[in-house]
Amino acid sequence: MSTSARPSPASSRQPLDVQPLLAALEQRLGYWLPAGHESDRVCSAMREGVLAPGKRVRPLLLLLVARDVDAGDAADPLGLLDFACAVEMIHAASLMLDDLPCMDDAALRRGRPTSHRQFGEDVAILAAVALVSRAFGVVAQAHGLSSECRTQAAASLSCAVGLQGLVQGQFRDLRYGKGARSAEAITATNELKTSVLFDAALQMAAFATGADAAARQALARFARDLGQAFQLLDDLSDGAEGTGKDAHQDADKSTLIATLGACTVRNRLHAHLQSAERHLAKACPHGDDTRFFVRAFFDRQLARLS
Amino acid sequence: MSTSARPSPASSRQPLDVQPLLAALEQRLGYWLPAGHESDRVCSAMREGVLAPGKRVRPLLLLLVARDVDAGDAADPLGLLDFACAVEMIHAASLMLDDLPCMDDAALRRGRPTSHRQFGEDVAILAAVALVSRAFGVVAQAHGLSSECRTQAAASLSCAVGLQGLVQGQFRDLRYGKGARSAEAITATNELKTSVLFDAALQMAAFATGADAAARQALARFARDLGQAFQLLDDLSDGAEGTGKDAHQDADKSTLIATLGACTVRNRLHAHLQSAERHLAKACPHGDDTRFFVRAFFDRQLARLS
Repeated sequence: MSTSARPSPASSRQPLDVQPLLAALEQRLGYWLPAGHESDRVCSAMREGVLAPGKRVRPLLLLLVARDVDAGDAADPLGLLDFACAVEMIHAASLMLDDLPCMDDAALRRGRPTSHRQFGEDVAILAAVALVSRAFGVVAQAHGLSSECRTQAAASLSCAVGLQGLVQGQFRDLRYGKGARSAEAITATNELKTSVLFDAALQMAAFATGADAAARQALARFARDLGQAFQLLDDLSDGAEGTGKDAHQDADKSTLIATLGACTVRNRLHAHLQSAERHLAKACPHGDDTRFFVRAFFDRQLARLS
Repeated sequence: MSTSARPSPASSRQPLDVQPLLAALEQRLGYWLPAGHESDRVCSAMREGVLAPGKRVRPLLLLLVARDVDAGDAADPLGLLDFACAVEMIHAASLMLDDLPCMDDAALRRGRPTSHRQFGEDVAILAAVALVSRAFGVVAQAHGLSSECRTQAAASLSCAVGLQGLVQGQFRDLRYGKGARSAEAITATNELKTSVLFDAALQMAAFATGADAAARQALARFARDLGQAFQLLDDLSDGAEGTGKDAHQDADKSTLIATLGACTVRNRLHAHLQSAERHLAKACPHGDDTRFFVRAFFDRQLARLS
């Protein structure tokens, strides 16, 4: 599809209001992670890890892409929320693990003490594992979606977590992050750390809406560019106030900023965003909520840095 | 079904040879966990955690029960092996996590250095999480089984890992294992630590073979008794040679042996085994390989202790 066939440009529309989606998402997360007895610290750590205020980028992307891909609203909205909850649980678990003393040893996350600081290392690890497991349980039971769709989603999510995804990205960051790395090696690690879970989220939206192979391929390319842009934004934000994370956590890491400089990184970020929009337009002929959301998100985050 | 309707007693049969099943299982585990590049320590830790010699009790139970329940061999044998692999991956991951310095801080497992001693704490944690995720991926892609069956199996496995299963059992052991506990509290924790994964394995066999609700309920009761018997055997084995684990790992724990004494524990173990056999007979009208396997296993293990 050429860009001329895209819907009206985002700038001519009413600002996209994601609050209703966010509210529905957080209500559903609470449904899957009900409060337990006060003494059940693992339950508390799971809830804190997932329900603490966050940007919810991955589940929102899943929900928005499902809307933009699926003109006929074929997918069960509650089932889509379930898929979105599963993705957010995986993301929260990955943050809890990344923050551990034997990994990044972080003190702050989302403006609060990290999970192991609040609950102890053992509870943080158990809660993260329980969240990963819960995520797959939620996918397996997602409301109103076919068994076929749920198994496709589970397989996709499994790849995103494991040896070709988050786990491998974190391992490479831990082992090689402090030595000199080529820009290519950093880009490859960033893809594992960020793009693969974006891709899994979008593929889950595609499975739920019955999107065709061409749309799924375009979404995969969108995810790759978007993941890179996100990671570059994260690198640019290190040291900035208001991230809710330890400042200068990456000070001794070989990021692309250390390798190429902030100016080149900003240019790369914009190039990835432009490429991401092109792929997105191919996948989503029926709406541009996703494009609007991504553009607004980056505009806001980049404005805070300048 | 009354006990008189059971097949010929195990004692009148040829000894059950599980070697062909074991060989097929280990070959399939190798298929799902192929060797990676030497530098990929997470991959090595995953393989070591799963492929190091073990008793394979959970996957063997799954395979044997599927045979005993399913006279018509309705389930795809390779799909059953896939389910069995997933259960073994979850079990291996739980051992790697239990052994961590912030948990049981164990040095030996299956006669070898524990995962964090071999690979470092960060790699051990990442490998365990990758195994949990891989297990769900394997279930989602299990060969020749219906999507419906695979989603049922994933939901069952998710419950066994999470807040109502292994994670909760380990948490209670860590938090309350060293203080005084009632026999009831210890039994409840043992159920979470052992019975729930047995149950998930057996329910997965039941889903794959299309067993009815009555058989599934009988298998759940069998799993509960068998899990208790296993945990008591494990307690009795603490300090014995040849377990492959740290000796006297439970010396400061409030086990049932410390609470009730070894003689009462042995009697309880036998009572659980008898009860387990009764439930098993109800679930499995078509064969008694499982009963034979369980009996031979406990006879062998108990003989080593006397």
